[in-house]
Amino acid sequence: MSMVTTMEKTLLDCEQYIEEALAEHATAQCPPLLAQALNYAVFPGGARVRPQLCKAVALANNSSDVGLANAAATAVEFLHCASLVHDDLPCFDDATQRRGKPSVHAKFGERIAVLTGDALIVAAFQTLSAHAVQAVRAERVHLVTTIVARGVGAPHGICAGQAWECEQRVDLSRYHRAKTGALFVAATCAGAAAAGVDPGPWVNLGASIGEAYQVADDIKDAVSDPDALGKPTGIDVKLDRPSAVRELGLDGAVARLKECLEAGLDSMPACAGHDMLQKLVRAQASRFVPEKIAQVAA
Amino acid sequence: MSMVTTMEKTLLDCEQYIEEALAEHATAQCPPLLAQALNYAVFPGGARVRPQLCKAVALANNSSDVGLANAAATAVEFLHCASLVHDDLPCFDDATQRRGKPSVHAKFGERIAVLTGDALIVAAFQTLSAHAVQAVRAERVHLVTTIVARGVGAPHGICAGQAWECEQRVDLSRYHRAKTGALFVAATCAGAAAAGVDPGPWVNLGASIGEAYQVADDIKDAVSDPDALGKPTGIDVKLDRPSAVRELGLDGAVARLKECLEAGLDSMPACAGHDMLQKLVRAQASRFVPEKIAQVAA
Repeated sequence: MSMVTTMEKTLLDCEQYIEEALAEHATAQCPPLLAQALNYAVFPGGARVRPQLCKAVALANNSSDVGLANAAATAVEFLHCASLVHDDLPCFDDATQRRGKPSVHAKFGERIAVLTGDALIVAAFQTLSAHAVQAVRAERVHLVTTIVARGVGAPHGICAGQAWECEQRVDLSRYHRAKTGALFVAATCAGAAAAGVDPGPWVNLGASIGEAYQVADDIKDAVSDPDALGKPTGIDVKLDRPSAVRELGLDGAVARLKECLEAGLDSMPACAGHDMLQKLVRAQASRFVPEKIAQVAA
Repeated sequence: MSMVTTMEKTLLDCEQYIEEALAEHATAQCPPLLAQALNYAVFPGGARVRPQLCKAVALANNSSDVGLANAAATAVEFLHCASLVHDDLPCFDDATQRRGKPSVHAKFGERIAVLTGDALIVAAFQTLSAHAVQAVRAERVHLVTTIVARGVGAPHGICAGQAWECEQRVDLSRYHRAKTGALFVAATCAGAAAAGVDPGPWVNLGASIGEAYQVADDIKDAVSDPDALGKPTGIDVKLDRPSAVRELGLDGAVARLKECLEAGLDSMPACAGHDMLQKLVRAQASRFVPEKIAQVAA
């Protein structure tokens, strides 16, 4: 952990960029409830795994345009927050808790929750286009935007992932790739693209971390208690949803998590910050599952 | 009407571009219900007033990049369709009919309706970034994207407009400007920006048409019968919503509609296609209120 401290400190700047970008939307002219809900949905954040990953890949590739890396990271995080807000809605998970506090619809009502998600999606793309004005290479912004959009829209992004939940027949792997993997892939590839590097070789890292994260989520849903996690658990069984724990058992799921992570790390392309990035990903992944649960499973 | 026929024919190409752009998202890999709902939400379209206006402004300014004008028009229409789908949701208008058929949530369920709106918002921005690759002037795409995003997000776009409905105290003018006007402003300004023209002088035309459209909508809600309109009426009174008819009476509302339109036309900046554009706007506006209602009001 100590070896990534300097990089982690740099990455914290992400938070300031996220704050500044959201402040452009939750202004004094914004309807007050919407402005409050936008801030409530984004702050305080979770682990910010995706934006940190995005920015870390950009920095590991010696990005000369840190502003674009920040904008890409912020867009990815806004889209993640939007998906959480909509995913918690009564028609989906009907979750009244998120990050240890009432979910957005529980606190502000369903209408504001729908609009908060919508406004965050728009804010994500507006953040990217706003950066383009001062971008070192304007054409990079378009590639980053396309990559980020693919991670959230149809046919392969988060929206598609959630839509697979509405189908009678679901391919579990395709479902997880879209619902969770796609935004991690967007994070690594957008980071690479922001640095002017071919994003293709960075797909596997994002996909693997995404799969590990999804498996960790299934594990937490199956064995954690709601207070420790800050949101309801046991949802997968309750909603009869596919889950790695239901498919592989707890030990099998923990083994799968580790396999995914190692496969991702092995696939990491050569770059200036290769070792540092590996350490960062390991440090991030060690927090995917609370220590108590990791011990229970071990 | 006959004098704008050639231009109108050109504008119809918009439809083909909308079809092609949506086909990129509603693919064979897309979850089938989501793919069906995306097509259902966009086709058959309404009057396509906003995208035609967008493209008309670009053409009237001798746009050399018709592809960008088409992309901008398509983005505006996707965002309009997204707002309709979300606006019809049970937590908002709870409308079961739209364009003479079941609304998206009535037909596909609430979850698919939320996701359809989300995916259309993403598709709008992806359409613009995809065009940027082949754009004559890549930097124009960023300006168009920023303009379009402002028209739909917070603090001044459609999301903000709908969020004003959730507030106890509402400034009627600010509410309408955001809920309806903002996307018309985005249409005219994005059209101008796509043509490389300063969008500032095109704000008033969009705002005025938007206000006229909103007043027409209030008139239809107050006096039309649901069958003729293809959606429920009497919603404003039912939901105790501000409305030009409730504020000014029917005759007053019809007078306001005409004033708005003329003010918008007067404000139109000089451009090569000035006269043709004026005729097109008048032709569009003549369809804002069904003839039968216009006669009732007269």
